[in-house]
Amino acid sequence: MIKAGIIGISGYSGGKALEILLKHPHVRVTYVSANNTTGRIDTIWPHLAGKTRLFCGKFDLEKAAKCDVIFLAVPHTVSMSITPKLLAKGVKVIDLSGDYRLGRSDVYKKWYKAAHKDTANLRKSVYGLPELYREDIKKANLIANPGCYPTAAVLALTPIASVYGKNIQSLIIDAKSGASGAGRKATVNLSFCEVDENFKAYKVLNHQHVPEIELYLSKVTAGLPNIHFVPHLLPVKHGILETIYIQLDKKVTAKDLETLYKRFYKIEPFVRVKSSGLQPELKDVVGTNYCDIGFAVDAKGTMVVITSAIDNLIKGAAGQAVQNMNIMFDFEENEGLL
Amino acid sequence: MIKAGIIGISGYSGGKALEILLKHPHVRVTYVSANNTTGRIDTIWPHLAGKTRLFCGKFDLEKAAKCDVIFLAVPHTVSMSITPKLLAKGVKVIDLSGDYRLGRSDVYKKWYKAAHKDTANLRKSVYGLPELYREDIKKANLIANPGCYPTAAVLALTPIASVYGKNIQSLIIDAKSGASGAGRKATVNLSFCEVDENFKAYKVLNHQHVPEIELYLSKVTAGLPNIHFVPHLLPVKHGILETIYIQLDKKVTAKDLETLYKRFYKIEPFVRVKSSGLQPELKDVVGTNYCDIGFAVDAKGTMVVITSAIDNLIKGAAGQAVQNMNIMFDFEENEGLL
Amino acid sequence: MIKAGIIGISGYSGGKALEILLKHPHVRVTYVSANNTTGRIDTIWPHLAGKTRLFCGKFDLEKAAKCDVIFLAVPHTVSMSITPKLLAKGVKVIDLSGDYRLGRSDVYKKWYKAAHKDTANLRKSVYGLPELYREDIKKANLIANPGCYPTAAVLALTPIASVYGKNIQSLIIDAKSGASGAGRKATVNLSFCEVDENFKAYKVLNHQHVPEIELYLSKVTAGLPNIHFVPHLLPVKHGILETIYIQLDKKVTAKDLETLYKRFYKIEPFVRVKSSGLQPELKDVVGTNYCDIGFAVDAKGTMVVITSAIDNLIKGAAGQAVQNMNIMFDFEENEGLL
Amino acid sequence: MIKAGIIGISGYSGGKALEILLKHPHVRVTYVSANNTTGRIDTIWPHLAGKTRLFCGKFDLEKAAKCDVIFLAVPHTVSMSITPKLLAKGVKVIDLSGDYRLGRSDVYKKWYKAAHKDTANLRKSVYGLPELYREDIKKANLIANPGCYPTAAVLALTPIASVYGKNIQSLIIDAKSGASGAGRKATVNLSFCEVDENFKAYKVLNHQHVPEIELYLSKVTAGLPNIHFVPHLLPVKHGILETIYIQLDKKVTAKDLETLYKRFYKIEPFVRVKSSGLQPELKDVVGTNYCDIGFAVDAKGTMVVITSAIDNLIKGAAGQAVQNMNIMFDFEENEGLL
Repeated sequence: MIKAGIIGISGYSGGKALEILLKHPHVRVTYVSANNTTGRIDTIWPHLAGKTRLFCGKFDLEKAAKCDVIFLAVPHTVSMSITPKLLAKGVKVIDLSGDYRLGRSDVYKKWYKAAHKDTANLRKSVYGLPELYREDIKKANLIANPGCYPTAAVLALTPIASVYGKNIQSLIIDAKSGASGAGRKATVNLSFCEVDENFKAYKVLNHQHVPEIELYLSKVTAGLPNIHFVPHLLPVKHGILETIYIQLDKKVTAKDLETLYKRFYKIEPFVRVKSSGLQPELKDVVGTNYCDIGFAVDAKGTMVVITSAIDNLIKGAAGQAVQNMNIMFDFEENEGLL
Repeated sequence: MIKAGIIGISGYSGGKALEILLKHPHVRVTYVSANNTTGRIDTIWPHLAGKTRLFCGKFDLEKAAKCDVIFLAVPHTVSMSITPKLLAKGVKVIDLSGDYRLGRSDVYKKWYKAAHKDTANLRKSVYGLPELYREDIKKANLIANPGCYPTAAVLALTPIASVYGKNIQSLIIDAKSGASGAGRKATVNLSFCEVDENFKAYKVLNHQHVPEIELYLSKVTAGLPNIHFVPHLLPVKHGILETIYIQLDKKVTAKDLETLYKRFYKIEPFVRVKSSGLQPELKDVVGTNYCDIGFAVDAKGTMVVITSAIDNLIKGAAGQAVQNMNIMFDFEENEGLL
Repeated sequence: MIKAGIIGISGYSGGKALEILLKHPHVRVTYVSANNTTGRIDTIWPHLAGKTRLFCGKFDLEKAAKCDVIFLAVPHTVSMSITPKLLAKGVKVIDLSGDYRLGRSDVYKKWYKAAHKDTANLRKSVYGLPELYREDIKKANLIANPGCYPTAAVLALTPIASVYGKNIQSLIIDAKSGASGAGRKATVNLSFCEVDENFKAYKVLNHQHVPEIELYLSKVTAGLPNIHFVPHLLPVKHGILETIYIQLDKKVTAKDLETLYKRFYKIEPFVRVKSSGLQPELKDVVGTNYCDIGFAVDAKGTMVVITSAIDNLIKGAAGQAVQNMNIMFDFEENEGLL
Repeated sequence: MIKAGIIGISGYSGGKALEILLKHPHVRVTYVSANNTTGRIDTIWPHLAGKTRLFCGKFDLEKAAKCDVIFLAVPHTVSMSITPKLLAKGVKVIDLSGDYRLGRSDVYKKWYKAAHKDTANLRKSVYGLPELYREDIKKANLIANPGCYPTAAVLALTPIASVYGKNIQSLIIDAKSGASGAGRKATVNLSFCEVDENFKAYKVLNHQHVPEIELYLSKVTAGLPNIHFVPHLLPVKHGILETIYIQLDKKVTAKDLETLYKRFYKIEPFVRVKSSGLQPELKDVVGTNYCDIGFAVDAKGTMVVITSAIDNLIKGAAGQAVQNMNIMFDFEENEGLL
């Protein structure tokens, strides 16, 4: 049994992390905090009543430092102010914010509009995408848990980029996310009457997850074209589906891709590759840690469409964070996640 | 052509009033205002782009006073601070708030938690339920436009109360409303992720619309029992459905009620009485000014269930307000509302 | 490890039972069947891909009989044609249909419009509501798993009926259910465009779950008044919330009720009693095996409103079925259900 | 006043056409029919109760032929069996199916999997997109009312194709439609529980609307690249939003496009071009006959993203059909549509 803590328990990612960890056989959650609320967990998350007697207080470094691992489910910039203190106390940190994902402080500043205050750890952090960085994760003290959109995108693109990287002429990601992706906020824009029966694009060609996707694809193969990324807000609570358009200068078949992907993800517990002709659906991944991936190829054989679906709060946030924790502490990788 | 103005244009009721009035053949909307925003209407309500060039400013009495009629779509307490000034300028006022509905200032204070500041007009206001007060509305200068829940309830209960009033032993109203009933607010409780796929009761046995329903039923018949009223929040944008349980000490049949109601509302343009065995559905009234009413009676013949459905923003607010205006200005009552 | 089978795997209850059992540490699902489809489970339930290699065939008694327990998730009347054969083979049966709930064949015929063909077992069946019949369930070979509406109603009403039974003057249940309660059917009435943004009452005062509720309340106390029950269709996938109105001839307070209910359900793992002033919400029980119960009492102290919420497919069907199985096979009662 | 009829009144497009025409000041609907149901209109469409006393019977050519214009809201292949008979009787026909859109019978056969039986009229039909073919529509006897996806796509692409046609290197349309686009069908796939909280792609790179889009763009400019089109099913009742990716070999700015589009659609009553930085949203077009169009351009200036939104049943079907009728009969083009 290890001791885990969650900072930022009142947000959707923090709450989901707690929900998952309460079922985990090898973890005891001993610390939770939030900055905008305090009280018994069931006053913040009534659905967890009867499952825990934890009390949420304001952040307290000494208390947090008694944990073996801390999940940081706080806004970006807050994370980098807490992380170095926790690491200094010998606590492993899994950071769900964007603070440690981009590797370079100049890129961070460009996209997150803030100077990076912890460049030392920025360089040491490990990108917590187990399917690609499992060995590094095992040894890491600081995990930069991937963004929700990048998780679906990088898992969908890595196999084709690794084999056909030189043939990729253009890359377009049309992404759709449920409302929980925007966090638990009091704004008219996220109110039921504005989101229900509605659909729209936002941050068109200008989302901060683009450099993250480009960075981790560049590690697979050099010379990929820029990514054109348009996110949309779906009238659902949970789930991301990305429709990815890849123009190749070489012919492939859907069967080629199916074979490639099934081989690439053969041993992966949380990636399911669809057989030819079948498409992922949000409802099959929502509530799970799976990423489902499907394909189509046009008649010419040069336009590839890959669809990739995850639950944004699970594989796109808290579930993947627990998967990383399992790897770091040498538990079964799917413990608590099935 | 008359000139109309709307104060509180940025809320759902104000916006809906504008949408309706822009289609009205005898009305020109010449004035709109809001307190929390200013600008061209299409920046506040993009769906109205291309239909109007109105500009929304802060409230300005002199400008408002040039209208023949003002729709007040502001929060309670704000209404009673503006209404006397408009009336003094000779402008007719249709108030969509609760400020002038309850007749007595002590009752107002009990339920709205504020002292009434305009008791003079409180006594002169006319309750704007055309099906019951058409003749008074014709002559009125100040209309207290009914609340959304009371509209559905009073229309559903008046016929049975008028005939079987002495036989009514108990009255229970189980009411369900879409989220727009709560207004256009920035709160986590009304956010998509909290309302979608959810359902709950609120203000159980303690809603400020209860005294309004009791007051206007008491004008139909004396001696009715207290009303037990429980509202619930539905995961829909628009619509109210109330399921009303009436215990009688006398036997009736559903056919008796159907006959009674069809006769009672025979000439009404906006009440539709369902034939035996059919139940109203939200989808048939949403987007319309109709109130649909249906019945069932138990095997003993003494428990009557009446269901009543309206669009909370139309027959429950802006549509009924326009219906009142039509009556006040001697237009066809359904003008602009079909 | 025991061997379990599910008959009727293609419906929502059957699918949910499989989903739960696949996570259960002491159960191996060895048999599944359906009558309208065959094939690998992931062709019927793609969300379970990667979790099982089960194959669904047509019903085959010999194969089913190798299980220790069978979950029957088939329509009523089908159940009573299969159950005696399974029992004769020594297999324990948990029947999710209405076939064995009503105790008497004449009552069954009246409400289910079919003659009962297995009256012998009808008398021997045990009503699978663990909170009331745990000791009988331990010894049972045939469980009549409660209906979804009755589960929420009987749990909500039993404590008050057991203490204030003689004081109850009237009983009204206003029930609201998500669309999965109607089953997985190809009908226009259940299509997205007819259910979304809609709400309506159905089977008003005439639902087949009424006699079930009355029967199991009558075992708590004699002489209760008839129940007036009106179900409604909510635009959500999962969940039931019932608002129950109880007229007493004696005064109580919400605190009295809270104390009574908290005591009554003190040791229950799956009933959560809300503290005064808090109301259950669908979102807190959906996806769980909990029943959440809350109260309000009017100013006079004689009108009690109890609200009760469950997930119709879990505590209202498959989850409760697994809870029963846990009791029958002496597992921890909450195994696989947290 | 003209006399209009609707064949296929029980489907969503037919019902919407009736709803619109009942408000039209110059039209009397004198004939409606359906093949799967008969009866008073309010038994088929309860929301229209009180607005019409029309009776729906089986199709009867003689009765239909008394109309000045017939709206055909029937499935493809049915349309081409009825159309020639109506035209022979001198009735103008507005066909909402795909039967007369593709111009050539071989293309029709490839995409609709049926031989065309009325090639004579196929050549004479006019494509009912008023913004492009207004003059032809005025003189037409047979209108091929555009498909829902093509309406949004052709309106979004025509201006850029007309100016930058030679510079377009690739064309991708990522389209999302509400469930009413699939028609009013009894299938499990369209049931509430399968569509709600779900999202998926379908007919990936293989939808029958592709040749229609390509055909009408080819009339604007020759030599455009093939269109890659992926439709998705949104959990909303109404609305289409298309996100269109256009790779140019020439630099443009969003402002260039805004200027071009605002000029192109300057006099159009039903196309609204968004100002720079604003994106169309479904909720602003649902319930209206508008097409809203917005833009973004990447930093390089060569990737253009155009978003286009309509109500699939109005501008994408029945509303556009009425717009065509208005043009054919020399009414104000927006009559009945505001």
